[in-house]
Amino acid sequence: MEKPSLPSGTRDFGPEIMKKRKFVLSVMERVFRSHGFLPIETPSLENLKTLQGKYGDEGDQLLFKVLNSGEYFSKIKPENWPVSPADTIYKDMTPQISDRGLRYDLTVPLARFVVMNRDKLAFPFKRYQMQPVWRADRPQKGRYREFWQCDIDIVGSNSVVSEAELVECYQEVFAQLNLEVQIKINHRLILDAFLPLLGGREQWNAFMVAIDKFDKIGQEGVNNELLQRDLKNAIPAWNTLCEIAALNSTEDKLLALESFSEIQNEILTQGIAQVKELLDLLPRQQNVVLDLRLARGLSYYTGCVFEVVSNDDRVPADFRIGSIGGGGRYNNLTGVFGLKDVPGVGVSFGLDRILDTLESANLLEVNNDWAGVLICCMEEAYLSQATQIARELRIKNVICEVYPGAPKLKKQLDYANSKGCKYALILGESEMQQQHAMVKNLVTGEQQLLDWNALSDHITLN
Amino acid sequence: MEKPSLPSGTRDFGPEIMKKRKFVLSVMERVFRSHGFLPIETPSLENLKTLQGKYGDEGDQLLFKVLNSGEYFSKIKPENWPVSPADTIYKDMTPQISDRGLRYDLTVPLARFVVMNRDKLAFPFKRYQMQPVWRADRPQKGRYREFWQCDIDIVGSNSVVSEAELVECYQEVFAQLNLEVQIKINHRLILDAFLPLLGGREQWNAFMVAIDKFDKIGQEGVNNELLQRDLKNAIPAWNTLCEIAALNSTEDKLLALESFSEIQNEILTQGIAQVKELLDLLPRQQNVVLDLRLARGLSYYTGCVFEVVSNDDRVPADFRIGSIGGGGRYNNLTGVFGLKDVPGVGVSFGLDRILDTLESANLLEVNNDWAGVLICCMEEAYLSQATQIARELRIKNVICEVYPGAPKLKKQLDYANSKGCKYALILGESEMQQQHAMVKNLVTGEQQLLDWNALSDHITLN
Repeated sequence: MEKPSLPSGTRDFGPEIMKKRKFVLSVMERVFRSHGFLPIETPSLENLKTLQGKYGDEGDQLLFKVLNSGEYFSKIKPENWPVSPADTIYKDMTPQISDRGLRYDLTVPLARFVVMNRDKLAFPFKRYQMQPVWRADRPQKGRYREFWQCDIDIVGSNSVVSEAELVECYQEVFAQLNLEVQIKINHRLILDAFLPLLGGREQWNAFMVAIDKFDKIGQEGVNNELLQRDLKNAIPAWNTLCEIAALNSTEDKLLALESFSEIQNEILTQGIAQVKELLDLLPRQQNVVLDLRLARGLSYYTGCVFEVVSNDDRVPADFRIGSIGGGGRYNNLTGVFGLKDVPGVGVSFGLDRILDTLESANLLEVNNDWAGVLICCMEEAYLSQATQIARELRIKNVICEVYPGAPKLKKQLDYANSKGCKYALILGESEMQQQHAMVKNLVTGEQQLLDWNALSDHITLN
Repeated sequence: MEKPSLPSGTRDFGPEIMKKRKFVLSVMERVFRSHGFLPIETPSLENLKTLQGKYGDEGDQLLFKVLNSGEYFSKIKPENWPVSPADTIYKDMTPQISDRGLRYDLTVPLARFVVMNRDKLAFPFKRYQMQPVWRADRPQKGRYREFWQCDIDIVGSNSVVSEAELVECYQEVFAQLNLEVQIKINHRLILDAFLPLLGGREQWNAFMVAIDKFDKIGQEGVNNELLQRDLKNAIPAWNTLCEIAALNSTEDKLLALESFSEIQNEILTQGIAQVKELLDLLPRQQNVVLDLRLARGLSYYTGCVFEVVSNDDRVPADFRIGSIGGGGRYNNLTGVFGLKDVPGVGVSFGLDRILDTLESANLLEVNNDWAGVLICCMEEAYLSQATQIARELRIKNVICEVYPGAPKLKKQLDYANSKGCKYALILGESEMQQQHAMVKNLVTGEQQLLDWNALSDHITLN
C-alpha cells in the first residue's frame, strides 16, 4: 500500500488556511476592481517557445517542462540520440521530447495575450490576474515550487498616473490587510546615469548585479563584490548611494542626488523629474521610500521600479526579509513577440509570502462569514423534516446543513463546534410533536425552544 | 520574431468571458457555502505515484507528465537505455525521467488529502474544490486539455441525506443559472442485480461498457455491441431497461423494475429501496429522472450515480449532448492510499461545459457590478486633481479610474465606452476654475455640471 505524499515545494490548503487565502484574495480583487482593472486568466501550460529566453539562463532552468504525449522518443533526431545515460547531450534532446511548460510568471503570458488579442483590446489595457505559477527552484522558507502571483498591469500607457495608481493599490491593499509595509521606489534612469562613471554597459550590468545583493550582504559586502568584479571606480558611487539612503526624507535624498557632482547628466535629470512627478501624485507618502540601491533583477524594466517589504513590528524579524511584491515600468515587453513600442507598467503581489507574513504575526482572523447552523436529529425519521427546515433557512441566507444521520447528540455537537457553527438546532421527539426545535447558541451556550416558523427571525449569524 | 500561440486544447480568458466565469463560479460557491461545504485546494502537481493506476489504462495515458529537473537522463538504468529512437522501451523509461504529473481530476487528490489529514479533519468532511485539471486528450468541441472542475464531496457519511444534499445543490445552482437540466440518477446495486443474468463479473463489466455507449450509439447500437461481445443473453435485459426508461414517471419505472421477474434478488431490492429513500428527501423532483441505463464509467462508484445534461429548449441541439456534471457514491475511495472503509459521495460541475452551454443560448448577461466611472482630463495639469476625485469616489464604493494622460476627449470617451463605464467625468478649464466636473451619463447621454463635493451623491452605478 503506497503512502501518499506531496511533491516537494507544493502544499495542500485545508479549509482554515483557504478561508484566509480567500480573504486576502478578496481584499486584493476589491481594490483592483475599484480601480477599473479587469480580470484575465491564461493557461497554466504555455508553449516552451513562449517561455524560454525570457527569464535569463537561470530562469530557463527553473521552468517545469511537460513531456510530450505518446511515443515521444520517436521524434528525436538520430544525431541527438544519446549513446549512454552519461551522455550530456540531453540539453539538445529536451526540446525534442517537450514542447510545453508551466508558466513561470504572469508577465510573459500577459505580453503574449496582448500581442494575440491586440485588435480586440481597449488600450490602455488594465488587467488583473491572480493565478499560480511554477518554478523548479530549491524549496525553502517562503519559497515554493507552486505559488500564486496577483498582478496588475497597465499596458499602453506612458503616463506617470499609471505608476501612481499601482502604488496606491499597494497602499490600499496593505492598509486593508492591516500590515505595515515599506514601498521602495527607484528609477532605472537614475541607475543608468551611473553608466559614464563605470565605463560601459558591461560594467554597469555587473554593478547592478552587485548592488542587487545589498539586502543579503550589506554595504561592505557590496564593496567587496565590486572589488572582486574589477569595479573599483564604482565604490565611491556606491558609498554615496548608501549615504543618500541613510537620509531621512525623500526631498533630502533627491537634493543630495541633484548635487552629486560626479554624475550630473540629462538621464539623471529625467529620472529625478519622473520620480518627483510620481510623488506629487501620491497623497500619502509615509510608507513610500526612495531607495536608490533598488535595482530589481529583471532586464525588461526601463523606468520606475518598485519593491514592497514588510516593516511591521509585529512580524517576527525572520519573516521581514524578502519582498512581498514588486514591479516596474517596461517599455518594450511585447517586442519579443513582434509588437513594438507598447509601454506598460505593472506590479505583482506575492500571495503566499503575504500570507506567511500575516500568519507569522497572527494578523489574520477568520471572519464570521463562514459560521452556520447544524440541524441535529435524534432519530433518522426526522431527517426529512430537518432537510425541509434547512432549505427554508438557506432561502433566508443562513448557512445551514443537516447532520447526515442520527448518531448520539454529542457526536453531532462536536461536529458543529469543530466547524465553527454558531447554532445547533435539535430535533427530538417532543420537538417534532410540537413542531419546534431546540435552538442552542454554541457561542453563548444559551438554549431556547422555537417554533419552526420563527427560526429564521431568531438566528443571526453576524 | 516568433509568432506567439497557445498549446492546443488550452484557452485564454479575456475580461468579457472572465466576468461570466466569475459569475458562474460565484453562484456555485454561494450554494456550496450555504450547505456548509468548506473550501480546499490541492497542488496542480502531484506525484505520478498518486495519480497512476486510478483512472484505468486510458486515463494513465492522458496524464500530463512533468520532466524531472536537471540531468534527468543520468538516472536512467542502463538496461532501459534505448539503442535507437525506434525502440519502444520508452514506456519503461518514462517513470525514470518523470516523477510528477498534473492532476487529472479533483477526486483522487481529495482521497490523498483526506488520508494525509485524517487526524485534523472533522468527519463527515464536506469540501468544495474549484480548480483546473489537465488531460492530454484529443481536443474537440467541449473538450479541452486544461479545464475546470467544481466538486463537492461528503466524506465519512453513509446517509442518503448526503446524496439528497448533492442533488439539491445541482438543482439550486442550475435554477440560479436559469438553465433547465435533467439530473439522471441510477444505483449501482440495480445494475449489479443483473450479474446473475449475465454469467460473471467479466460479462457484467462488458455489459457496463456497452450500455455506457447508449448516448452515442442508441438502443440498437448497444444491441449490436452486445452481440459482438458475446453477450446475447443480455439483450432481453437491455431491451427491458430501455422499455422502462420510456415510462413517464419514476414510480412507474420502479414498479416495472420490481416486477421484472428475471432479476429479482436482494441486491435489486436494496438498490430500489435506496433510490426511493433518496427521492423521498427531495421536494422538487420534476428535473430528477431515474435512468436505469446510466452506468458511469468509473469503477469506484458503489451506490447512487448521477449525471446532469441540459434539456433546455433554448440551447442548440448540438450543445445538449454530453454531461455537464456527474458523480456518485464511493465506499472505498481512500482504500488505495491505505485508509479503508471511508464512505463518501460527491458530484462534479463541469465549469467549461456549463459555460459553453449557457453561452450557446446567450443565457449569460454580464451584470452591472463592473460598470464604473472614467475621469477625463483636458490638460495634464488636471490629473492630480482627477486622482484626488477618483480616490474620494472609490471610498464611496464607486469603481473609478483616471484616464492616464490627456489625449483628445473622443479617445478618452471611446475608452470609457469600450470598458462599459456608466459615467465620464470631464475636467476642462472652466470646470477646474469652478471646482466642478461635467458628468456625462454614457448610457442615457445626459450631462450635468456638478460640484466636486456633490459627485458621489449623484453617481449611482446599479
